[in-house]
Amino acid sequence: MTNPTAAILVIGDEILSGRTRDSNLHFLAGELTRIGITLREARIVADIHPEIVAAVRALSGKYTHVFTSGGIGPTHDDITADAVAEAMGAKIGHRADAMALLQAHYDRSGLPFNEARQRMARIPDGASLIDNPVSTAPGFTLGNVHVMAGVPKIFEAMVASVLPKLTGGPPLLSQTLRVDRGEGEIATSFGALAAEFPDLSMGSYPFIQNGAHGTNLVIRGTDPGRLDQAMVKLTRMFG
Amino acid sequence: MTNPTAAILVIGDEILSGRTRDSNLHFLAGELTRIGITLREARIVADIHPEIVAAVRALSGKYTHVFTSGGIGPTHDDITADAVAEAMGAKIGHRADAMALLQAHYDRSGLPFNEARQRMARIPDGASLIDNPVSTAPGFTLGNVHVMAGVPKIFEAMVASVLPKLTGGPPLLSQTLRVDRGEGEIATSFGALAAEFPDLSMGSYPFIQNGAHGTNLVIRGTDPGRLDQAMVKLTRMFG
Repeated sequence: MTNPTAAILVIGDEILSGRTRDSNLHFLAGELTRIGITLREARIVADIHPEIVAAVRALSGKYTHVFTSGGIGPTHDDITADAVAEAMGAKIGHRADAMALLQAHYDRSGLPFNEARQRMARIPDGASLIDNPVSTAPGFTLGNVHVMAGVPKIFEAMVASVLPKLTGGPPLLSQTLRVDRGEGEIATSFGALAAEFPDLSMGSYPFIQNGAHGTNLVIRGTDPGRLDQAMVKLTRMFG
Repeated sequence: MTNPTAAILVIGDEILSGRTRDSNLHFLAGELTRIGITLREARIVADIHPEIVAAVRALSGKYTHVFTSGGIGPTHDDITADAVAEAMGAKIGHRADAMALLQAHYDRSGLPFNEARQRMARIPDGASLIDNPVSTAPGFTLGNVHVMAGVPKIFEAMVASVLPKLTGGPPLLSQTLRVDRGEGEIATSFGALAAEFPDLSMGSYPFIQNGAHGTNLVIRGTDPGRLDQAMVKLTRMFG
């Protein structure tokens, strides 16, 4: 049995221009690993309607789940909801449930529920809302696409709302052995070990520290017993 | 005239599992913006041969340049060079020029130039080598695909070798106005300003600081005069 798969689609010119460094991808990657959903791909696209539509279609057809980040606020560059609706063949408009949530929020805060803010109630037909405990404006799940805000604090709160509803497989476990040798020295025996344990995934991650080459050897898998067996052999080789 | 476009393809299970946070994408984004090449898309895929082949083909056909990061070391999970060769329809083998570079490097360091290390001389026919001043093993450029190492220090050195050879357009300039108001308050006038300057790109990036909502309003474009005109109007609105 293989675990469900996922992709994340980050929407935002500000990441691609180098202005902002994305953190949502890294956060989601850790959370999905923990609950046994395998993140297989990430994409970042600009705030361009047809680009978002094409990416949502491609990823939605290929993976169990797609998570999007960004572009669901009140400004003119927030075009994700409409693009996701188009990609999934759904109609979109100001939905009554989202309008009611936002109306109550702005009534409480005394701010006008103006036309721009009402844009945040644009939710595709058939979508279920994702709770936003930080600033009320909801995300949504449409088919296998989970649409969330880009502000990290809100994205993380929305992930916490969504993940308990998803079914994962056994969590992906990993163990790491750090060796103070370059990859070229350990490659042959490490490759042989990887071939001996085809049910595990083994990766080699070189680094340079204080001018010296070192390597982190990482073994991943869902069966803790097999992971331990491989780790014993690895430690005997290089420990 | 529009600027040349680019995509980055990061290859690595370790990013998708949440073990490592990628930094190469953010670094490259900043460098490309500076030299007037527009980064339009980023993808991260796992160490899976057909996935890398498909992504290289898709991106290479769509953008002026593709930059890849990761998977060109000596271990069994380093499969990028072979995947890029297949995607671009090139043959690949241990190339004499790369073998000579590496042989000289290991002769100097007194380490054996073993079979694993020789894998790093696998370079596609027709590719030109990218200099690696940190650890010698070269990257390569094949067609419009620039293949570089994943270790940030080496990636950055390779980017420094490659970029001076590329032709960019006018650099993309940006100015930012930070306002202590939520997006919902500024959205309508900011959208109107964006419509008034269709040659500029305007983005709104909300944040939460000490529990209060604020927004960074960013104007981007290549003409400094137009940028200043828009910025004067923006500051008059919200400054």
